[in-house]
Amino acid sequence: MNRTVSATAGRRVPAGGVSSRPRAERARQLADVLRQQITAGRFDQGRLPDERRLSRRFGASRNAVRDALGLLRDEGLVSRQPGVGTVVSTPKYGHGLDRLAGLAETLTGCGNVFNEVRVAETVAELPAAIAERLEVHPSAGGVHLERLRWLAGLPLSLDTSYLTADVGAAVVAEDLAGRDVFALIEEHTGCPLERAEIAVHAVAADANTAALLQIPSGAAVFAIERRTRVRGGRAVDVESIRMRADRLILRATLHRGGAK
Amino acid sequence: MNRTVSATAGRRVPAGGVSSRPRAERARQLADVLRQQITAGRFDQGRLPDERRLSRRFGASRNAVRDALGLLRDEGLVSRQPGVGTVVSTPKYGHGLDRLAGLAETLTGCGNVFNEVRVAETVAELPAAIAERLEVHPSAGGVHLERLRWLAGLPLSLDTSYLTADVGAAVVAEDLAGRDVFALIEEHTGCPLERAEIAVHAVAADANTAALLQIPSGAAVFAIERRTRVRGGRAVDVESIRMRADRLILRATLHRGGAK
Repeated sequence: MNRTVSATAGRRVPAGGVSSRPRAERARQLADVLRQQITAGRFDQGRLPDERRLSRRFGASRNAVRDALGLLRDEGLVSRQPGVGTVVSTPKYGHGLDRLAGLAETLTGCGNVFNEVRVAETVAELPAAIAERLEVHPSAGGVHLERLRWLAGLPLSLDTSYLTADVGAAVVAEDLAGRDVFALIEEHTGCPLERAEIAVHAVAADANTAALLQIPSGAAVFAIERRTRVRGGRAVDVESIRMRADRLILRATLHRGGAK
Repeated sequence: MNRTVSATAGRRVPAGGVSSRPRAERARQLADVLRQQITAGRFDQGRLPDERRLSRRFGASRNAVRDALGLLRDEGLVSRQPGVGTVVSTPKYGHGLDRLAGLAETLTGCGNVFNEVRVAETVAELPAAIAERLEVHPSAGGVHLERLRWLAGLPLSLDTSYLTADVGAAVVAEDLAGRDVFALIEEHTGCPLERAEIAVHAVAADANTAALLQIPSGAAVFAIERRTRVRGGRAVDVESIRMRADRLILRATLHRGGAK
């Protein structure tokens, strides 16, 4: 793949450059390059060149190309059919990590997010672990929401939220199907959001979640914990989100000196 | 689980509250609560209470508790053995997304990161897709690195990097086994880092990557693209990183008004 000049002594340098590496490793590297180009929208009408052309373009063997496309198919990024070739399955949307934003807000311009409200209930007593995260006593109660969020006819994420009683009461009667909870909080409580702490995990989808999200059981998904605070620092919303990783990318610009 | 008061009309409210929901959904919710508590270090010596106690503490059925623990075991977060109980497998380290930092720098205080240098080679011609990402001509060449990064005797991530020729030349002869590339760039080139664009994917590990990272084939991993720029905005380093998701959490604080 590359003309290679040997590096400093004492390191493991493959004799013949990249092309001498195991095929599986070359396939992984090629899959990474293709994933980056696919999600950057580099292939006209989402149609990839055929294996022969990809092989030539990337200086890789046909076998490595086939393996790389197989990895991307297993990720749900492309589909492959004889006579049709390799096509991008569904656009992969960028979800920014640069600022706090709801899903519909983040995806403005990509289409309308529709929320299938599976649970919207007032709870008189919060589960203890949730109350602790909300920094209230369980007896303060709250509102429990579960929404399956759709875009362009496919599920994007499954969001479980617990809101404090006051904020929840203002939000639960509103248009939960069509609006972000963040926007509803700000519009209906007079509490502007301030910040959220998030923790992003990647996990295999359990069978139930996979069925709801319409992905294969065991597919990789993001599992995101998010605790959102209004101005002044009061926690009002704790969420657990399962996000389809074949449809969403988390994007950020990180600065060396810290957030700017 | 909760005393439930019915919410506004026209929404799907389960009659008996959370406990009437399918067991798989209750297990997922409980797994989320437990994951959050485990990664917050809430269980003394990484040992979880037995099923009976967890059932009482979380107001969940024994079956839901067992299913939740099974999900966390499948994630690699806990191990379960008869007579021993449920113990946390390995600490899950937080990798901050609030600022640009190398892995060793991020994990200061968690132990020393050791880098197994699998590839360190000067390439006379960059792959075209990499050159484009580095915003140079392929004939400018560069340095190709692949490092398997270890902490506490276990692999954490597999990092493939391409550096521009000048920055790569300064770095390739240095202590790649013991140091972050970011620190080496700053120390040996006089180019302070400025920022990086990152894209985070979650994918199932292919068999080869899984073997290198010592995880089951198909386990969920983070696949991260990162392009790092030095002061003035010049791109010097493009990376493709596979990160064990059972050992690392990506954490950030997001602000409503954007990065602050």
